[in-house]
Amino acid sequence: MYNERMYQLGSKRSSIREIFEYAKKRSAEIGAENVFDFSIGNPSVPAPNAVNEAICRIVRETDPVVLHGYTSAQGDKGVRDKIAANYTKRFGVELSGDDLYMTCGAAASLTITFSALANAGDEFIVFAPYFPEYKVFVETSGAKLIVLPSNESNMQPDFNALERAMNPNVKGLLINSPNNPSGAVYGVETMQKLAEVLARKSAEYGKPIYLISDEPYRELVYDKETVVPCPMAYYKNTIVCYSYSKSLSTPGERIGYVAVNPQAENARAVYAAVCGAGRALGYVCAPTLFQRMAAECDGMTSDLSVYKRNRDLLYKGLTDCGFTCIYPDGAFYLFLKAAEPDAAAFCERAKKYELLLVNGADFGYKGWVRIAYCVQTERIEKALPLFKKLAEEYGL
Amino acid sequence: MYNERMYQLGSKRSSIREIFEYAKKRSAEIGAENVFDFSIGNPSVPAPNAVNEAICRIVRETDPVVLHGYTSAQGDKGVRDKIAANYTKRFGVELSGDDLYMTCGAAASLTITFSALANAGDEFIVFAPYFPEYKVFVETSGAKLIVLPSNESNMQPDFNALERAMNPNVKGLLINSPNNPSGAVYGVETMQKLAEVLARKSAEYGKPIYLISDEPYRELVYDKETVVPCPMAYYKNTIVCYSYSKSLSTPGERIGYVAVNPQAENARAVYAAVCGAGRALGYVCAPTLFQRMAAECDGMTSDLSVYKRNRDLLYKGLTDCGFTCIYPDGAFYLFLKAAEPDAAAFCERAKKYELLLVNGADFGYKGWVRIAYCVQTERIEKALPLFKKLAEEYGL
Repeated sequence: MYNERMYQLGSKRSSIREIFEYAKKRSAEIGAENVFDFSIGNPSVPAPNAVNEAICRIVRETDPVVLHGYTSAQGDKGVRDKIAANYTKRFGVELSGDDLYMTCGAAASLTITFSALANAGDEFIVFAPYFPEYKVFVETSGAKLIVLPSNESNMQPDFNALERAMNPNVKGLLINSPNNPSGAVYGVETMQKLAEVLARKSAEYGKPIYLISDEPYRELVYDKETVVPCPMAYYKNTIVCYSYSKSLSTPGERIGYVAVNPQAENARAVYAAVCGAGRALGYVCAPTLFQRMAAECDGMTSDLSVYKRNRDLLYKGLTDCGFTCIYPDGAFYLFLKAAEPDAAAFCERAKKYELLLVNGADFGYKGWVRIAYCVQTERIEKALPLFKKLAEEYGL
Repeated sequence: MYNERMYQLGSKRSSIREIFEYAKKRSAEIGAENVFDFSIGNPSVPAPNAVNEAICRIVRETDPVVLHGYTSAQGDKGVRDKIAANYTKRFGVELSGDDLYMTCGAAASLTITFSALANAGDEFIVFAPYFPEYKVFVETSGAKLIVLPSNESNMQPDFNALERAMNPNVKGLLINSPNNPSGAVYGVETMQKLAEVLARKSAEYGKPIYLISDEPYRELVYDKETVVPCPMAYYKNTIVCYSYSKSLSTPGERIGYVAVNPQAENARAVYAAVCGAGRALGYVCAPTLFQRMAAECDGMTSDLSVYKRNRDLLYKGLTDCGFTCIYPDGAFYLFLKAAEPDAAAFCERAKKYELLLVNGADFGYKGWVRIAYCVQTERIEKALPLFKKLAEEYGL
């Protein structure tokens, strides 16, 4: 009567959603001020003023018939040219508007990219921990997601596992740096090593293996010395999937892009396949008003000082308690090693202190938990004594 | 290296696009005022003021963190409740916010609906002439589009063809009234007859056959006596795919909805499958700002008097010339019978007079052409003497 896969995807609640519902129920029982919900990765800092100013100015100043009209399927040419020029200026990589395809956000960028590339039997590799919707998007394209481990000490790729997993069916490697949920950033050394493996294996198999870089957290880094390397500068067969959701705090407006490196093999054909996948999946064009807003606000960020303050406070507080944490160079998540082997049991014990965490197993990584620190700083200040009690319970 | 279907979809230019490019080239040669481009179905009347007022008010008055934040995947509950209540009030059919799923426009509504319903081997039926992207959207779901003829006299369904085409693999019938490209509206009698066939065949095969109603032109009718019947009132297994693109002249902003009739068999499961398909295709939520705008402007239209004036002028002018036309009850297209059997040759001859028309064969209907009258009225006034000369050339 209907499609069973779609029914399952639409009726099963994600575990993060379960926690969200629990938080609501618990708040009603004991008051929201006593519940510490660190489950949701939703920007807690408003969009920069420039976003709202741009929206109202565009509405006021654009020819009224053009204002809300269709753009070309790949996005308004002026918008693409401006964003591409800014990309070149920021990252030192040649990119033109004709290499950019504007999308309805990161999920669209990824689904379109996988569908553009994949044929039946293809594989995409990702390192755990990883955002679980990747599996959904890859499977929509008919391909299979292969999950490899990261090193526990720093959440960088396990290169031995990568070597072992490589085979002629691998169509691409998906990376996400800064990472959800670990907060880890892939530095220059990691990028170089990844590029070396991909180039070597591409040559061995006689076909390009694509690097798909999901970068919604690209601008969310907090230390001067932390640089997020531009993957196109390291590996030619790179496709960047970007979204303005986190940098501009506009996740509901669904605006982002796919950038196909013009140096990629058959770059124009890959770009055409991206356009075709957008068409096949029902994306006519990205919302016109938000395309224009993005062109004006590209490169800006919402006030990151809140996230930085939260990150510093939380990391210091938790390590002082004796917890093992990955130092979060970016994004707004902290990855913490559960104080017992079973992270689900650890989350349950944290719940007794009204601390709501997400099991790392939901991100394909056992024994760890994710703490989303995109919250009011006051919540972290109040939560730390409770984390202290939790640590004491484990004798840390 | 990439997916061949996507490459083909992304690299083949549509014939409408070809005409658009030709119009640009020809305008450069002889001046835009001498080229009569009737090829593009793009609203030529701006959005009502209420749209822009709503956008700026929402930006000004909404809590800044909530403003651009995620809504739930199916759309903001308040938005859905308001639109559903308005639907019930306007069409007399019970609908709640829980039956609505907000989408990024009509193409998303359709792609999501087909993917929610279809299993391999399924068929969806449509009557020609039909919007050619339907084939793309249906095939993305893995199903097959079956094209049946309409009666040439009035562009209503050929019911004999429908009876013959029915078989247990038919998952749904797709209708589009007011129709692109014919301008025809399915009245009460047609709706009753369609419902009768679908109900009888559903019973015979022991499974629901869905009626999928693509309604972007629902509000674009021009005579008091023209009523667009609400399909849910006639047939329970109905899914409405709506877009605000044409009614509010906001095609670039990508906002619409899927409405699953709560009276449908297993309505909740079908709705869950719609949610799942949205997720699988990378739609996280419809753009938040435009969801809120839609809730405020639902039921309004841009100034339809221009389209009505154009319709009246064009229909009278062309029939006075001796052309055979379908009287366009709605949408902003006029369907005209080519004055020779080969509509492509007719379009070429029209081109000599700088009249740019679209071959009906592009909509699966041979021997006719589409004239999009969403243009400045002055263009029609100036074009009619040229149509007159064209008619004379054929001895009409």
